[in-house]
Amino acid sequence: MPSNETTERIDRQLLQEVVERAGPLTADGEVADYIPALAEVARDRLALAVAPLAGRPESADPVLAVGAGDEAFSIQSISKIFTLTLAMQRNVGARLWDRVGREPSGDPFNSIVLLEREEGVPRNPFINAGAILVADVLAGAGDDPIGALVSLVSELAGADIAVDERVAASEAATGYRNRSLAYLMRSFGNLVGEVEHVLDIYFQQCSLSMTARQLARATRYLANDGIDPSTGRAVLDPLDARRINALMLMAGTYDAAGAFAYEIGIPCKSGVGGGIVGIVPDQVSICAWSPALDQTGNSLAGRAMLASLVSRSGLSVF
Amino acid sequence: MPSNETTERIDRQLLQEVVERAGPLTADGEVADYIPALAEVARDRLALAVAPLAGRPESADPVLAVGAGDEAFSIQSISKIFTLTLAMQRNVGARLWDRVGREPSGDPFNSIVLLEREEGVPRNPFINAGAILVADVLAGAGDDPIGALVSLVSELAGADIAVDERVAASEAATGYRNRSLAYLMRSFGNLVGEVEHVLDIYFQQCSLSMTARQLARATRYLANDGIDPSTGRAVLDPLDARRINALMLMAGTYDAAGAFAYEIGIPCKSGVGGGIVGIVPDQVSICAWSPALDQTGNSLAGRAMLASLVSRSGLSVF
Amino acid sequence: MPSNETTERIDRQLLQEVVERAGPLTADGEVADYIPALAEVARDRLALAVAPLAGRPESADPVLAVGAGDEAFSIQSISKIFTLTLAMQRNVGARLWDRVGREPSGDPFNSIVLLEREEGVPRNPFINAGAILVADVLAGAGDDPIGALVSLVSELAGADIAVDERVAASEAATGYRNRSLAYLMRSFGNLVGEVEHVLDIYFQQCSLSMTARQLARATRYLANDGIDPSTGRAVLDPLDARRINALMLMAGTYDAAGAFAYEIGIPCKSGVGGGIVGIVPDQVSICAWSPALDQTGNSLAGRAMLASLVSRSGLSVF
Amino acid sequence: MPSNETTERIDRQLLQEVVERAGPLTADGEVADYIPALAEVARDRLALAVAPLAGRPESADPVLAVGAGDEAFSIQSISKIFTLTLAMQRNVGARLWDRVGREPSGDPFNSIVLLEREEGVPRNPFINAGAILVADVLAGAGDDPIGALVSLVSELAGADIAVDERVAASEAATGYRNRSLAYLMRSFGNLVGEVEHVLDIYFQQCSLSMTARQLARATRYLANDGIDPSTGRAVLDPLDARRINALMLMAGTYDAAGAFAYEIGIPCKSGVGGGIVGIVPDQVSICAWSPALDQTGNSLAGRAMLASLVSRSGLSVF
Repeated sequence: MPSNETTERIDRQLLQEVVERAGPLTADGEVADYIPALAEVARDRLALAVAPLAGRPESADPVLAVGAGDEAFSIQSISKIFTLTLAMQRNVGARLWDRVGREPSGDPFNSIVLLEREEGVPRNPFINAGAILVADVLAGAGDDPIGALVSLVSELAGADIAVDERVAASEAATGYRNRSLAYLMRSFGNLVGEVEHVLDIYFQQCSLSMTARQLARATRYLANDGIDPSTGRAVLDPLDARRINALMLMAGTYDAAGAFAYEIGIPCKSGVGGGIVGIVPDQVSICAWSPALDQTGNSLAGRAMLASLVSRSGLSVF
Repeated sequence: MPSNETTERIDRQLLQEVVERAGPLTADGEVADYIPALAEVARDRLALAVAPLAGRPESADPVLAVGAGDEAFSIQSISKIFTLTLAMQRNVGARLWDRVGREPSGDPFNSIVLLEREEGVPRNPFINAGAILVADVLAGAGDDPIGALVSLVSELAGADIAVDERVAASEAATGYRNRSLAYLMRSFGNLVGEVEHVLDIYFQQCSLSMTARQLARATRYLANDGIDPSTGRAVLDPLDARRINALMLMAGTYDAAGAFAYEIGIPCKSGVGGGIVGIVPDQVSICAWSPALDQTGNSLAGRAMLASLVSRSGLSVF
Repeated sequence: MPSNETTERIDRQLLQEVVERAGPLTADGEVADYIPALAEVARDRLALAVAPLAGRPESADPVLAVGAGDEAFSIQSISKIFTLTLAMQRNVGARLWDRVGREPSGDPFNSIVLLEREEGVPRNPFINAGAILVADVLAGAGDDPIGALVSLVSELAGADIAVDERVAASEAATGYRNRSLAYLMRSFGNLVGEVEHVLDIYFQQCSLSMTARQLARATRYLANDGIDPSTGRAVLDPLDARRINALMLMAGTYDAAGAFAYEIGIPCKSGVGGGIVGIVPDQVSICAWSPALDQTGNSLAGRAMLASLVSRSGLSVF
Repeated sequence: MPSNETTERIDRQLLQEVVERAGPLTADGEVADYIPALAEVARDRLALAVAPLAGRPESADPVLAVGAGDEAFSIQSISKIFTLTLAMQRNVGARLWDRVGREPSGDPFNSIVLLEREEGVPRNPFINAGAILVADVLAGAGDDPIGALVSLVSELAGADIAVDERVAASEAATGYRNRSLAYLMRSFGNLVGEVEHVLDIYFQQCSLSMTARQLARATRYLANDGIDPSTGRAVLDPLDARRINALMLMAGTYDAAGAFAYEIGIPCKSGVGGGIVGIVPDQVSICAWSPALDQTGNSLAGRAMLASLVSRSGLSVF
C-alpha cells in the first residue's frame, strides 16, 4: 500500500527520469489528425505532472511538473470527468443511472452494437455516447453547461481555462459519428434535448485547452474524497468521488481499460489530444501528456510514463 | 485509505450485524437450478468470512467467520482465480495473454459475439470461454491440472479440498454452451487440446466444494503481494497478484463488474453457487455466501453483505 | 408457369373474392402511428389492383382495381423502387454497387450492426440506410431528385402524383433513426452530400401519395422488361428491370423477405403505409393495400391478399 | 419468360461454348483445402450439365452434360436440398419451421451472432446450423436418415450414390465449428438429439459423391412441381417444391445469395466441393462444377458458367 513515504519519493528527479526514458517513444504512434488543430501539435512533446493532496505552504503551486508541463493541449475526452462531476453535483445521480450504464463497453464496433441492443442507453458515461447523454442531462437542467464547466475547471485548476473555439468548430464540422450516436439515442427517446444543441455542448467540452500541470491540480478532488485541497470545498460527496474513480478504471481508456488496470493499476482517463489523467486515491493525481496515440487511442508515451511512475513509486490500487 | 485501525474495526460483531441485516434478502433472487446439486441448496443460507493477513498467534485459525461460514458449497467460477494462478505460476504468462485477453466482456450474448469477432480469443480469463482456455493451457503443460489445483487450494485453505464428483458429472452432462464455446475456440485453433478432456478439467474445477472460511483464507495471497501468510510461501510474484486483482475488478462478476466497482469498490470474483470472494489489497480477503442469485448471476445477499461490510469499514480501493 | 390463360383468370370477380375474404383480417395488426397522417387512416380499408401488361384497347385504364383501389395512401418505402430506377437510369449502376450492397439485411438490430461492421455500406437499396444512400447518389447527380421522381411516377401512373407535404414534415420531425443511419454513413465517407438535404429527399420520396390502381399501373415496367406498356418507353434496360425484381424478392419486405418468398413467391416491395407491390415477370404487376401492419412491418391483410391471389392464379415465379 | 423454344436452344454446342469460355477462370480462386480429399481435386476441372423435364424417348439418359460431367465430386452443402426434401416429405414441415427459420442469414460472423440472438433457431435450413437442425429432425423421426438419403438420391439420379467415407471421416475430424453450432443449439434446447450422432449424419450427407450429370438429373423434381420426370413419382407436393426453390434463391449460396439473384436470377445451391445446382422452374435443372472457389465460397468458374448459360438462354425467373 502507498504511504506518505511513497508520496515523498515522487520528486522532480524521478519525474525527469521518467520523462527522459519516454523520449524515444515519441517517435512511435500516430498524432490524431482528424482536425487540423490536433494534427499540428509537435509529436515530440512530453509532460508529466503530479499533484499531491497536502498543500505545500511554502509554495503557491502545489504541483510538480516537468517537460512541457506548462504547455496547453486539447483535453478532449478527459473533460468527461468534469461533466460527470457536474451531473453528480446536481443530484441527478439517481436518475442519471437510468439513462446511462456503468459497465464497460468494448471497442467502437461493439459500442454502437450495444447502444442499439440496449435501446439507446450507453454503457457508461466515458464512451462518447455516454458523455453526449451526460451533456443532454446538463442541458436539461436548464442553465449554461459550458459556463458551469469552465467555471468549475477554472476554480479547480486555479487558472482561467477556456474553450478553444477553433477546435470546437472543427469538432462540430467533422463529428458525424457523434451525430449518429446522438440521433440513435434520440430515436429511442433517451436523449431528449435538441440534438445539435447537445452536441454543441459536447464539442465545446472536448475543446477545453489545459496544461498537464493544470489537469493534475484540477483532478485532485477525485483522490481526496471529493474535496479540492486548495479551497477545502466539497466538490463531490466522498462516495461519488470514489465512484468516478471506479468508472475511470472500468472505462476511462477506451478498449484498453483492462490493459491499463492490469499494467498500471490506477484509475485513468485519456483523451485523443494525448493527455491521460491518473488518480491514486488518498495520495496524488497525475497527468501525463504526449500527442502520439497507440492503436487503442491512448497516448503511447503518456501510458508508458504513467506505468513507469506508478511502478517505481508503488502506487497501484491493487 | 484503509489502515490497520480499519482492519481492527472488522470484528465478529460487525460481521454478525451485516449477516443479520442481509437475512430478509434471502427471500429474493433465484437459486441456480440447472443441476440438481445446486438446486437443492437451502436458499436461507448466509455466510460471511474475513481473513486478515497478519496471523493471529493465539489462534490456529486466522479467519473470522459467521453464519454458515463452515458449510461447504460449490465454488463454481471462483475456481477461475486458482487456475489462473496456476497458469501464471508456470511462467506461461507471456504466451497466455496471446491466447486470452484482459478486457471486460459484457453479457453472454456479447460474449459469444466477441469470441467470434476476435477469432476465438476470449476477452478475459474470468468468462467461461477464457477459463476453458486457461484449462487448455494447463492441460498442455503436461501434468495433472486437477491434481495441481486440489493441491494448491488445499494448501492455501489449510484443509483437504476435493471435487464434488456428483456436481462435476452434472456439469458435464449439461454443459452444452461451454462445449459450444470450446469448439468455437478449437475451430480458430486457439484451443489446442482435445475438447472433452479440456472440458473435463473445467467441469471439475467448477465443482470444488469449499466453505466461506476456507475461501477467505485461501485467497489471502492475492491481498498480500502473492505470499500466503500461513506458510510464507510466494504463491505468485507481487505484480502478478496485483494483476489478478485488477482482472477481478474488471471482469470478476459477469456483466455487473461495473456496478460492483461502483457500488462496492474492491476486486471480487463470484460463482453461481452463490459465493463471492472480495480482495482488499494489503488488508484482508473476504468471502460472502448465499445461494440465491440476482439477474446478473451474482449472489443477491452476498453482494449486499460485501457492500455493507466494505462501506462500514471504509475498505474501497478507490 | 403462368401463361396467358393464367392471366386471363384474374378477373374482377376473383379480386373481389380475395378482398372479401381478407376483410376480417383488418381487425388484426397495428396501423403505423409514429406520425399523425398515418395514424389517422381507417384500419378497415382494403384495396387490390392488378395491371396486365397488354393494354386493353377498349379501355382507357388498363388496371383492374377493387375495394378502395382509388383511395390514395402514403407509399412510404415503395418509393425505393422508383428512386433506385432513377439511379439505374443515370448509368450510375456500376458505381452505385460500390456504395450499396445487394444482400439481404435482416432485422433493424442487425441492420445497424451490419452497417457499422461493413463500414457504412448498407446491405441493399431497400433498407432505409440503402435508400438514403440512393438519395445521396441522386442528389450528387446535380439536378432535382424529387422533381425527377414526381415526373417519373406521374408518367408511369398516368396521373399527377404529388408529395404529401404534411407527411413529409412529420417524417422530417420524427426521423431520428434515419438521421443516425445517415450520419453513420457520412462518418465512413460513403454518404457524401449534406445530410439534412439528403434526408429531405428521402423524407419527401416516402411521402408520395398514390392509389393502389396507380401503383399497380406505375410498376408494370418491372414486369415488362423495363418498358412502360402505356407509352412503349424503355424506362430501364431489360436486365436492370429483372435485377430490381431480384432485389425486391431478396429484400423488399423487411425481415420477412424469406417468408414472403416462401409463402407468396413473387418479388414484393412493401411500405408502412400498408401498401405492397408485387411483380409477376412477363405477366402482371399487383398492388394490395390495407393499413394495419403485422409484426414484421408489412400490411397484414395486404400480405394475405397477395398470397391468396398468387396461389389461386398460379403466379409464383418458382 | 422462357418457352419451349428457349429450352430447345440449350444444346450441346451452347454448353460447350460456355464451358470453353470458363476455362481461363479455373486459374483463379482457391480450391477448398480444409480436408485432403477436397484439396487433391485438380483445379482445372469444369463440368456443365442440363436436365430437361421432358424425357427424350430416344435416349436412356435425358441429361446433356459436357466437360467433366461424369466425374464425381463431393456435393457438400448441395446435400442440404435433399435432407430438407426428406424432412418435408415426412410431414414435419409445420413443426420444422418452428425450429428453423426461412430468412437469409448473412456471413459466417453474422450467422453465429443471429443464432445466439435468436436463441438457437438457425435462420434457414441452408446454413450449416440449419442443416444440422434438419439432420436432428430426421434423426428424431426414428429411422436411418443416411439410408433414406442415399436411397432417395440414388433413385433420383438413376444411379447408385454413396457416401465417400474418407471425406466423412475428414469432416468429422475437422468439424469444430459445426460442433460449436450444434452445441449452441443444444444449449437452447432446439437441437434435441445426441450431438455427435446428429453431426455424424450431417458429416455423411456432406460427403455424398456425385457427378454433375447425376446432380442435374436428381434435382429435376424441384423444377417439375415436385414430380421426378423419370419415374413420375411425386417426391414433394408442388407447393413444397416451389418453396425449396424460394429458399434456395434466398439462402442457397452463402452470403452471395443477393449477388446470385441479381446476376443470375435463378434458385441455386452451392457446395464447397465446387458444385452449384440451379433450378429453372418448369424448364430445366442445371449443375455446374469447378473446384476453385471465390471469396464467398462459391465455385468461381461454376458461377460464371451458370451466369453465362442463363443469360444466353434467357432463363431468369425475374
